[in-house]
Amino acid sequence: MADISTPDTQAPLLVRACRGQTLSRPPVWLMRQAGRYMQAYQDMRAKYSFLELCKNTDAAVEVSLQPYKAFSTDAVIMFSDILIPPEAMGMELTFTEKGPTLPNPIRSASDIDRLIIPDPVEKTGFVMNLLNSLRQELAGDSQTALIGFAGAPWTLASYMVEGGVSKNYTHMKTMLYNDPTAFHRLLDKLAQTIILYLNAQIEAGAQVVQLFDSWGGIVSKELYREFILPYHQQVISGLNRQDVPVILYVNGSAHVLEMMAEAQPDVISVDHLTSLTEARRRVGDRFTLQGNLDPTALFAKPEVLKPMVDTLLKEGGTTGYIFNLGHGVLPKTPVENVKLVIDTVKNYSCEDSFVSVVHPAVCT
Amino acid sequence: MADISTPDTQAPLLVRACRGQTLSRPPVWLMRQAGRYMQAYQDMRAKYSFLELCKNTDAAVEVSLQPYKAFSTDAVIMFSDILIPPEAMGMELTFTEKGPTLPNPIRSASDIDRLIIPDPVEKTGFVMNLLNSLRQELAGDSQTALIGFAGAPWTLASYMVEGGVSKNYTHMKTMLYNDPTAFHRLLDKLAQTIILYLNAQIEAGAQVVQLFDSWGGIVSKELYREFILPYHQQVISGLNRQDVPVILYVNGSAHVLEMMAEAQPDVISVDHLTSLTEARRRVGDRFTLQGNLDPTALFAKPEVLKPMVDTLLKEGGTTGYIFNLGHGVLPKTPVENVKLVIDTVKNYSCEDSFVSVVHPAVCT
Repeated sequence: MADISTPDTQAPLLVRACRGQTLSRPPVWLMRQAGRYMQAYQDMRAKYSFLELCKNTDAAVEVSLQPYKAFSTDAVIMFSDILIPPEAMGMELTFTEKGPTLPNPIRSASDIDRLIIPDPVEKTGFVMNLLNSLRQELAGDSQTALIGFAGAPWTLASYMVEGGVSKNYTHMKTMLYNDPTAFHRLLDKLAQTIILYLNAQIEAGAQVVQLFDSWGGIVSKELYREFILPYHQQVISGLNRQDVPVILYVNGSAHVLEMMAEAQPDVISVDHLTSLTEARRRVGDRFTLQGNLDPTALFAKPEVLKPMVDTLLKEGGTTGYIFNLGHGVLPKTPVENVKLVIDTVKNYSCEDSFVSVVHPAVCT
Repeated sequence: MADISTPDTQAPLLVRACRGQTLSRPPVWLMRQAGRYMQAYQDMRAKYSFLELCKNTDAAVEVSLQPYKAFSTDAVIMFSDILIPPEAMGMELTFTEKGPTLPNPIRSASDIDRLIIPDPVEKTGFVMNLLNSLRQELAGDSQTALIGFAGAPWTLASYMVEGGVSKNYTHMKTMLYNDPTAFHRLLDKLAQTIILYLNAQIEAGAQVVQLFDSWGGIVSKELYREFILPYHQQVISGLNRQDVPVILYVNGSAHVLEMMAEAQPDVISVDHLTSLTEARRRVGDRFTLQGNLDPTALFAKPEVLKPMVDTLLKEGGTTGYIFNLGHGVLPKTPVENVKLVIDTVKNYSCEDSFVSVVHPAVCT
């Protein structure tokens, strides 16, 4: 995290939280905040396929801004999918009811050789256009951050080798065990791709970037250290940071939190299996934490949900903490509960009184 | 574990390992060892539906013995399903391509009230008949253990509330958050059912019983302590043990191993996310460990797989260790690799020489 002694009230709240500054309240946004639980999103999906939504700049701008307009989230995350870079590397990609499908999966060293390391502006210019447009949309609101993102090499490799979502990752694990050299080459190609991709996002206006390793928690510490951590380190150290903080999210991270810290992100995004208190004890004070309300808690009654948010706010505190879920917002989540969560965070104050977000008091 | 100073060479190898005795080699069996990867099993499934296989004693005996006959496993586990007790409690149960389906899931306190606590002999006599028959089949082989089993209350509740397999456990979590009292009542009814069910299995000839909490790893330590651990304790302390050891398996247990120990089983079955070395350090020497080869490792080349088994054998040792997988055998697992794993364990010796299983040398 950057120097915490120089609060910069011009920077968006989220960026200041990433830098470990003490704020009047934590910033709040939700992973997968633009999605099926919103009627406005479903209306757009009735007009566009999922991939069209990702690639049509106007549509993607609209969807990205939906939760910001509805709930005044402290961040807008670009609407996209982690599999856009693998498609740009040369893989066919479709989306069906069952989720993403890659009909020609990677199964051999020669399959890996055929993958290109794409120029992100040339091959995925629509993502950069989206970020450009979103920054323009947010030009009048210096307090709201624009987030870019990418999938981490391990998770992308799982989709590319399995050909889609997987239950047991048999094909990927077989490659890992039988030909670790080839598998490392795939991960390295992905890391190179993601470095270029995230740097282009930063260039295009992303003020924070998040690296998602959704399936990083499915292996032992030993395999994580060999096949996951080095590529987090490669990606994070390869970014032209220019003061842009990096958030690292690994789902199922209870056994690997210390290695998330070794990757040296600014922010460690904690899932709902580990308490913030335990996470802070294990990774130390150098990192901002993000998380970690159970996404299923948003299905509870408001009178049950609100105290859970209050408890988490007390636990997270106002220094180096970003309120979020432990994983993405689930389909069918009641919209009024999303609003309740965000309002509760926005009305929280370390001084137990409402403090303007635009000119926050600094609690000491 | 029982007194380790009195090795009882009349007891099956698995039972002696559960008691923490030092053996010439660890016993070996595999979770879900009777299953789709075996052609002989598929032949039986062509003749019987899944539930028929569970309930037809002759068919269940045959399927239970298939891996024992093919690979000389050190244990026979009765062929059955963890959802047999919920069906006996009054829930409709069917099996489709997608797995188990309970078309009338538990969604309210009155649904819970309607569940009965079944007499296991009256309602699930076919399970007791199966165990009786299997003991007769094994009468000439005092070294091979017969294993009975049950699902743990949490995992059974997940199926009963969700109506089948679930991705996010939204219905169960909603009940847990909104009406913890009702949810505890469901778990208590399940615990009472499972105590009677496992005691009847012990009465019918099971020499070891395993409690499976397949979905026990999906929650935080805090929720585990409130909704999972107490029911492990209730079940385990409620058994008429009569020297019958209890194995506790929780999938995704990396963050809750210490609480598995608090439940006081004889054996802690470790999944493949935690090394045996770490597990032993964290739970202490009082417990036998079972595990924990990655089931996907059985898809690797034999020359890759064999050293993995060798390494695990050295790590596990010959005192208080049972060789097994970290989870069940996967469909499509190459049969020759199952044989390789079992043969490698059976040929292992703490003295680096073959020792008869019938009269094992005791390594000191």
